[in-house]
Amino acid sequence: MENLLIPAREGRGFHVSTGQKFRVVTPKGQQAADFFAYNANNVGEWLSPNHTWVWNRNVHPRVGDSLLSRFRRTMLELVADTADGVHDMMIPACDQFRYEQLGFEGPHPNCADNLCTAMRRLGYNIDVIPQPINLFTHTVVETDGAFNSPPNPVQPGSYVELIAKMDLICVVSACPYDLFIEGWPINSPEEGPTEIIVDLFT
Amino acid sequence: MENLLIPAREGRGFHVSTGQKFRVVTPKGQQAADFFAYNANNVGEWLSPNHTWVWNRNVHPRVGDSLLSRFRRTMLELVADTADGVHDMMIPACDQFRYEQLGFEGPHPNCADNLCTAMRRLGYNIDVIPQPINLFTHTVVETDGAFNSPPNPVQPGSYVELIAKMDLICVVSACPYDLFIEGWPINSPEEGPTEIIVDLFT
Repeated sequence: MENLLIPAREGRGFHVSTGQKFRVVTPKGQQAADFFAYNANNVGEWLSPNHTWVWNRNVHPRVGDSLLSRFRRTMLELVADTADGVHDMMIPACDQFRYEQLGFEGPHPNCADNLCTAMRRLGYNIDVIPQPINLFTHTVVETDGAFNSPPNPVQPGSYVELIAKMDLICVVSACPYDLFIEGWPINSPEEGPTEIIVDLFT
Repeated sequence: MENLLIPAREGRGFHVSTGQKFRVVTPKGQQAADFFAYNANNVGEWLSPNHTWVWNRNVHPRVGDSLLSRFRRTMLELVADTADGVHDMMIPACDQFRYEQLGFEGPHPNCADNLCTAMRRLGYNIDVIPQPINLFTHTVVETDGAFNSPPNPVQPGSYVELIAKMDLICVVSACPYDLFIEGWPINSPEEGPTEIIVDLFT
């Protein structure tokens, strides 16, 4: 088992081979982990939650679900989940503009920049910020379409286990969101943003 | 008023100037119109339903809502709606792979190809199929996250009226979906795919 620490507010990329399993863990709980995946042989093919939910007919990823690329090919499968399905696929990666939208002044670390930096570190410049799967993030859609993010119930040590169905470059960003305004806590208002661990089975 | 006919199963692009209003009409009703928009001065900036719903906190566009780009800038505003809010922002554009996923054999007209063709006709090659706003498309998200598309209740002659907040290239595809399987009718099973009209106020 190889462990990768993703410090609070930062992002990291890593390679995963076809058939390899890995876990994404929130050691302290209540911490959003923005998850992105690319075909390692063609970074023009990326994980698409939008294509995934129309296939699985559910806006949350569930154990056994296939996670599809924008070309509708299976990239990953969700093998285990100790976070009771509290994962979001609908909130775009936070970016500088999101923090400004919410009234923050000055530069703010964000998942979009974390993704770009992690990909550059591996040699890739990307033009598009794909929709992430926001692991350990609590959102609900009401029947009238209202979209909300209630307080995060994810317990310390919760994890998801995934298996790669093609060779992948994955990126996880430990979401830097810390505004805690407007009733959208996302992360723990008490702890602030915390680290994420990726355990790679070898 | 300038009228643009979009034949059943086809797509068309058109320019809209800042402040200009236009209507998208389903003359026969029950017909999905996949709607895309680009900044006319930079087609790298496109309409993003994902960024739109997190801003408006609703997965359906409502009268008065701003529709945002992937850079979170306002591209359009929804001014009027006679379809009672029956619009989807979550189903990706149908493509060849979607029809194959659903068991169809051989080439099938689709909204993704319609978008690419409409953009090429205006001189642009695009690398990404953005998430469309599927006007006149009925979807619901249940509180457990289940995502479904019940029968389409949109009446003949229903329209939405939009106003451009920047110079835009818009594309509308009269969705060619005609499989009518798995309880996802999308369009009218009786009529099959039908035409869409765009009325541009001059």
